[in-house]
Amino acid sequence: MPSPRSGARSRTSKRIGSGSPEPLILGIDLGATKVVSGLVDARGRLVRHSGRIVHANDGPGGVIRSLVQSARACLDEESRAPVAIGVAVAAQVDPRAGTVVHAPNLGWRDVPLARRLSEELGAPVELINDARAATLAEWRFGAGRGVDDLFCLILGTGIGGSAVIGGQLPEGGAHAFGEVGHLTIEVGGRRCHCPNWGCFEAYAGGWAIAERARESVLADPTSGAELVRRAGTHETISAQTVFAAYRTGDPLAVRLVHETERYFADGVISVVNAFNPSVLLLGGGLIAGLPELVPVAESAIRARCQPPAASARVVRAGLGENAPLVGAAERARQAHVGAYSRARRSANP
Amino acid sequence: MPSPRSGARSRTSKRIGSGSPEPLILGIDLGATKVVSGLVDARGRLVRHSGRIVHANDGPGGVIRSLVQSARACLDEESRAPVAIGVAVAAQVDPRAGTVVHAPNLGWRDVPLARRLSEELGAPVELINDARAATLAEWRFGAGRGVDDLFCLILGTGIGGSAVIGGQLPEGGAHAFGEVGHLTIEVGGRRCHCPNWGCFEAYAGGWAIAERARESVLADPTSGAELVRRAGTHETISAQTVFAAYRTGDPLAVRLVHETERYFADGVISVVNAFNPSVLLLGGGLIAGLPELVPVAESAIRARCQPPAASARVVRAGLGENAPLVGAAERARQAHVGAYSRARRSANP
Repeated sequence: MPSPRSGARSRTSKRIGSGSPEPLILGIDLGATKVVSGLVDARGRLVRHSGRIVHANDGPGGVIRSLVQSARACLDEESRAPVAIGVAVAAQVDPRAGTVVHAPNLGWRDVPLARRLSEELGAPVELINDARAATLAEWRFGAGRGVDDLFCLILGTGIGGSAVIGGQLPEGGAHAFGEVGHLTIEVGGRRCHCPNWGCFEAYAGGWAIAERARESVLADPTSGAELVRRAGTHETISAQTVFAAYRTGDPLAVRLVHETERYFADGVISVVNAFNPSVLLLGGGLIAGLPELVPVAESAIRARCQPPAASARVVRAGLGENAPLVGAAERARQAHVGAYSRARRSANP
Repeated sequence: MPSPRSGARSRTSKRIGSGSPEPLILGIDLGATKVVSGLVDARGRLVRHSGRIVHANDGPGGVIRSLVQSARACLDEESRAPVAIGVAVAAQVDPRAGTVVHAPNLGWRDVPLARRLSEELGAPVELINDARAATLAEWRFGAGRGVDDLFCLILGTGIGGSAVIGGQLPEGGAHAFGEVGHLTIEVGGRRCHCPNWGCFEAYAGGWAIAERARESVLADPTSGAELVRRAGTHETISAQTVFAAYRTGDPLAVRLVHETERYFADGVISVVNAFNPSVLLLGGGLIAGLPELVPVAESAIRARCQPPAASARVVRAGLGENAPLVGAAERARQAHVGAYSRARRSANP
């Protein structure tokens, strides 16, 4: 039905499945450059979704406006309000307070996002860190279904991760459990974007692969010619440029990929020795671009982890880029639908 | 009262407190060279204890005989059997199966210790890894009391650890959660005793500090003269030799200690970034011998951890060498006294 908000209808709003289940749960994935909202059913399927570009420069007010628009575009065919809304944010969030504590890429500090969204959209809002949301989604609906001890390692521009430990999804003392991108793998090593040196991410994250490639190109422009040709300029070389050149046998790209594999193996060994997961899930853009990393992880674990930890299975994450949105919706469902059902049961025993 | 087992009375059996509480719980700490048994009260106090030297060469049969002797020496003034027995083992244990899966220092594989002890001592037996037992003890009774997100890092000959995560003491997929001694801190670095290279323990564990010292002495005998003089021979230099020479300003020892601090700081940063504890407990012989490591950890965390994790407090562990025994008893109490009380309650509602 047309709603008073139909002016906000999204160009990108889509109907993926048919119908929508009871109760209505909205998941939202807020990144540094875009926001995607989606209706998610109880089996973790994205029923309908809508995206908007966001501009961090607009500040929290502008970003929240885009977020509300994308949410309303998903809801405008519905005659009822959602029961709950979950928002995955690429940030440190405090789920209890409902605040985004620190989102470096958005430039936010202590933004009371849950309250502001709840006022706009008329439903309770749960916040969750995006890596934790992706882990929850993979655990409930994806490649980690039913595994009680799981580590989900997500390799993109940075390296994120989160864990299921004994059938729980821990938060940590300051909502930062499982930040294994900042394990030191080289004492006194490369400068990270965090205050440390030698971090896993500072060698094997997407930004670091690009940085190492650019340094190599500057040091030896002749051997770097192929990378520059592909990227257009030396400044625009990315990890994916390196992976593409590697596929054609470019010697510099081959060296960079082999070095990346070595650093990646050491990070994976640390994660598996420290967390002792039964299953290590690997996801993110780097795994999509260089799936060779999956067998690299597998053989490093078998050869070099401690005997009890060396039995961990390595599996590719299954839900792709929708995982944070689906996990955020699931978190909202856990927080509100259970209570709703319990209240109904105790009212009608 | 004298018991039929009074011949097993220990030379080292001591009465520390007066009286023993209901119910009777026995804790046992089984290491590679000695076993200590003790009666532990509900407040985690060691009421009476008894130790024996063990010889790994005697095999499981001989070691278990010493263990049973030390246990009976603790029990022989009691007119009743213990309600439960907990055993901390420096090993990978399977608590559900009641087996010691792998104890490298004892040379054991798949020893059904719980069943054998239970038959000898007439009470149910719970097994627990020694680092996990120490963490449980510090959490319930020591320096980590009441902290829901805690990492307990124990620096001795090796580096062990375990964590309390969201108010739970996780096991991991193969009972090896928290083995942070085997985080890689140097890609392609020093050979570890495990199958990996560059582990935290291979730089900052007691055996590694001694190994690094011996290498330095061999490389430059003149600068190493003081360490050799103190240790008697170059082969007997230990981490504690290095710490003692450091106190008198020996230049080689000063260099070795400063290098150790640098490696230690990187390991601590990894642990705190990965597990995000509210409190990091530091314990073990290296902390006792070089308490300067406590402020080193504190300043490394403040300066170089990620902002959310950098708020972790650093605290020295409080229970000392009794922690594994006390934690083993507590595990046995949790497993059996609660069930016993519940059974009584349901029988007498």
